[in-house]
Amino acid sequence: MTFLRQPTRAGVRDAAAKIAAILPPTPLFKSEIKGMAVAFKAESLQPVGAFKIRGAWHRLTALDDAARARGVVAFSSGNHAQGIAWAARKLGMAATIVMPHDAPAVKRDATLALGAEVVGYDRATESREGIAARLAEARGATLVPSFDDPWIIEGQGSAGVEAAAQMARAGSGEPTHVVVPCGGGGLAAGLALALPDTLMTVVEPEGWDDMARSLEAGWIESVGLDAPPTACDSLQTQRVSPLTFDVLSRQGVQGVAVSEAETAAAQRWAVERLRLVIEPGGAVALAALLGGRIALEPGMLVLLSGGNVDPAAYARVLAG
Amino acid sequence: MTFLRQPTRAGVRDAAAKIAAILPPTPLFKSEIKGMAVAFKAESLQPVGAFKIRGAWHRLTALDDAARARGVVAFSSGNHAQGIAWAARKLGMAATIVMPHDAPAVKRDATLALGAEVVGYDRATESREGIAARLAEARGATLVPSFDDPWIIEGQGSAGVEAAAQMARAGSGEPTHVVVPCGGGGLAAGLALALPDTLMTVVEPEGWDDMARSLEAGWIESVGLDAPPTACDSLQTQRVSPLTFDVLSRQGVQGVAVSEAETAAAQRWAVERLRLVIEPGGAVALAALLGGRIALEPGMLVLLSGGNVDPAAYARVLAG
Repeated sequence: MTFLRQPTRAGVRDAAAKIAAILPPTPLFKSEIKGMAVAFKAESLQPVGAFKIRGAWHRLTALDDAARARGVVAFSSGNHAQGIAWAARKLGMAATIVMPHDAPAVKRDATLALGAEVVGYDRATESREGIAARLAEARGATLVPSFDDPWIIEGQGSAGVEAAAQMARAGSGEPTHVVVPCGGGGLAAGLALALPDTLMTVVEPEGWDDMARSLEAGWIESVGLDAPPTACDSLQTQRVSPLTFDVLSRQGVQGVAVSEAETAAAQRWAVERLRLVIEPGGAVALAALLGGRIALEPGMLVLLSGGNVDPAAYARVLAG
Repeated sequence: MTFLRQPTRAGVRDAAAKIAAILPPTPLFKSEIKGMAVAFKAESLQPVGAFKIRGAWHRLTALDDAARARGVVAFSSGNHAQGIAWAARKLGMAATIVMPHDAPAVKRDATLALGAEVVGYDRATESREGIAARLAEARGATLVPSFDDPWIIEGQGSAGVEAAAQMARAGSGEPTHVVVPCGGGGLAAGLALALPDTLMTVVEPEGWDDMARSLEAGWIESVGLDAPPTACDSLQTQRVSPLTFDVLSRQGVQGVAVSEAETAAAQRWAVERLRLVIEPGGAVALAALLGGRIALEPGMLVLLSGGNVDPAAYARVLAG
């Protein structure tokens, strides 16, 4: 795919202004880990339960009237689908989401409730990319990837602009180290653009730490065929994008991996200490701090990126 | 007990100003129930996980330097204890909390972590009121009740001032009907003073609806000896106070009761729709709307009053 442009810091600032006009900032909470104050940005409290609403809004508002009239297509069974559906509804655009036939009913229903059309496919025999591309072409609609897109990256970065302003207002100064969950790297790359002078660590589930390995190697490595099962469905990307990788690589970002047990413990900590529901993939950055994978220091900012849980699985996690 | 004064609307406004100077407003979320937009005030997101921090701050800041130096005593095994401990620590005051020996370790630890002294007693043979009164007298400390106090009522009412301002800023207009969990009635009475022109319904667990029965009877009735077990530990008051009853009675407030199953369903709804951890007692107002105990109308404001859950019990609720 050829891109007309790279994501930029100016684009992140533009996205932040557009998003501030329609959504209140998500709350920033302070709590202590082993006596050290840490700031938590609760993107789980966005209307659709994840930061994805930011990139979706920045992308769709960048379309002209003719493009908006032709609608938008996305493939996702998760938070990106809901972000696109939410933004499209707010703009009066038609949204079509390509989702596997066996997607959880709760996710399909949430997407339908936002007014999107859901097109099913068979995971075993069909390609969602192919279906989405054909749909977009037939309708003249815009296909919006979940992270491999400059607008999406800039939009997600608006969370960093917001958090830095909130920390400044709270007298906490600049963030010194931002710790962020990483799937395709859209949120991480956006934050890196938003906070170019801040140390950053991206966090992935064990075995799915392709961004960490890529950043160490200096080129993009894919997830191994032997990657273990993970509860972090929102971070299960097979391969990051050159756009996200390049931003993180240029800024010398490093990555760490956390175990499933560490992620579950972080979800429980969020219940007891912050009274927040955090999905597994949204809890990995917190897990890295609690598990001692990253040294604690003053001024840390942790992204709690999403809160869409499967109720039964979540109950099992809380039961320990 | 003789009170020097009644709680007033001016006192609520004063409390709101004092609290705005030290705490950001708790978030106000909008969601839909059966297609009707409803506003939710998430007091569960206060630093100690409940609105109790408001009354505690208003009460302790009203003490002069000499009284502050002698410290504060409270009896509670729950949210009031943590509210008092939090406010006392912030003011550099000594706080003593009288708590049963068999209180959950998580609550005792949270209170100790806030720097308070915990004095245990035996539920079967000792009176917590007596122990607290003796301690307060011996030390010259101020005994702060959890709801039977004009400052506490005014402080809790600051949540209503905040919520009304947030609804106005969001273009939602004045709240038309505020629905609030009720134990001793401190939060409800404070909100009634804050929002004198707004219809109010207080919500209690079935069998613990002494405020509803009192308001209907026109005099204070106690909880029956045959009251069933309830998960709503924070609403298990045997008898409301003349102070709270009088405020609600003068404003023609009515009450409804909800079942344990309705409360559990509301806790699950809060996870899936708001990504919030709400304790049973904090979820009863939402439960009354979801269960059809109160008719839905535009402009409703629902208090989610606390989020301190026992992890194991919470896991069972989420498992259904």
